[in-house]
Amino acid sequence: MLSKNTLKFIKSLHQKKIRKEHQSFFVEGAKNVTELIYSDFEITHLLFTAEYAEVNKEVLQLASGSHYEVSESVLADIGSFQTNRGALAVAKMKPSLSIEAEPGELLLALDDVRDPGNLGTIIRIADWYGIRKIWLSLQSADCYNPKVLHASMGSFTRVQMQYVDLAVKLKQQSLPVFGAFLDGQNIHGMQLRMEGILVMGNESNGISREVEALIGQRLRIPAFGNAESLNVAIATAVICDNFRRFEG
Amino acid sequence: MLSKNTLKFIKSLHQKKIRKEHQSFFVEGAKNVTELIYSDFEITHLLFTAEYAEVNKEVLQLASGSHYEVSESVLADIGSFQTNRGALAVAKMKPSLSIEAEPGELLLALDDVRDPGNLGTIIRIADWYGIRKIWLSLQSADCYNPKVLHASMGSFTRVQMQYVDLAVKLKQQSLPVFGAFLDGQNIHGMQLRMEGILVMGNESNGISREVEALIGQRLRIPAFGNAESLNVAIATAVICDNFRRFEG
Repeated sequence: MLSKNTLKFIKSLHQKKIRKEHQSFFVEGAKNVTELIYSDFEITHLLFTAEYAEVNKEVLQLASGSHYEVSESVLADIGSFQTNRGALAVAKMKPSLSIEAEPGELLLALDDVRDPGNLGTIIRIADWYGIRKIWLSLQSADCYNPKVLHASMGSFTRVQMQYVDLAVKLKQQSLPVFGAFLDGQNIHGMQLRMEGILVMGNESNGISREVEALIGQRLRIPAFGNAESLNVAIATAVICDNFRRFEG
Repeated sequence: MLSKNTLKFIKSLHQKKIRKEHQSFFVEGAKNVTELIYSDFEITHLLFTAEYAEVNKEVLQLASGSHYEVSESVLADIGSFQTNRGALAVAKMKPSLSIEAEPGELLLALDDVRDPGNLGTIIRIADWYGIRKIWLSLQSADCYNPKVLHASMGSFTRVQMQYVDLAVKLKQQSLPVFGAFLDGQNIHGMQLRMEGILVMGNESNGISREVEALIGQRLRIPAFGNAESLNVAIATAVICDNFRRFEG
């Protein structure tokens, strides 16, 4: 039986401050919850509808924490989505480990990507293209924001993230540092190699001056029409695709 | 002076039914409004803050319709966004013209893309890659939804759209018909030519059975990690980029 206090606690995890204090977060939606159960995150509370339980009997047996079968309306009341999504899980954050780009690996660095939907979508793109590590500048969206986790469609369980002072990290780099700009070199004419750091900038302002000064190779997605720019998640996907096409 | 009735009318344009009845829609945000003024859409009402007017004096002189200088709070009250965006314009819809793919041209066809943010983002991507025409299946999101127009960042003024019965249109095609699938041919190994129709499917269900049967070339974006799929707007951008790279 789900107590009022537990319900209140889960709802309070909408706030970043509370998430940090309790080192806990929640994810919503059948797919995200199932991916969380299969991951090595420690689940403390698992709420699901009878329908989810019916379809996911074996998955549920793998899940740690307290289990609660609830109605769709309880899930809708707690979560971020108007429609029910079958399940919701509360889990413990993992300790933030220091990550570095190894030779032969491309690491993604986000310079103040603030929109949670964009960040979640970028995590999913990274996972699609086999990028395992993301640096987030200190002003980026919170990677435990429910909207980020939802948009990542489970990919947050497979991509390591670390909040860093990007300028400090980039200054220490010996691997190539790439950045996306509207006036860089046309990526269609390049044979990009999956090694180094790829920096993507803020939704409105692009890459900051301080970080720009540390970028060795300026990349540009060629335009063929009249749109002034592409959304940062879209640009990330296109550039990752161009990196990967020579290493298929 | 903005009357209560005018205010009420503009607010009612949040509803598709009212937009259709009055053949009118509104767009929000300085960039979108400015692009609308430069386009051949007929503006009937233009609301803007003193700050927008200060920066866009010459632009405003080009704009038809009734002009109203209003406070940020009025714009926030009418529009979809919590934060003020400088301006809001009401315009008349254009008659829906019949569009066809001409030889040497790629037309985009969306099979039930229902999320307004996705549709708007796809319109912006089409504009970036110089795709001028989009067919929308009858169940697709309304292209005059304020969220669609906002996400398009002005690109809706440059891309022609028509709602069609996709299966009927595809049956009549003599140009190649491409579609995105998780089990198609790897696009990294193809030299795609910008000619024909590119079909992208629904967010959850992909391309419908009926439409699938009419697709000649199944395309696949190769995956290198563990994400199961990509968001439809992301996939559209990556595929368009692959079409364009051999026609730079």
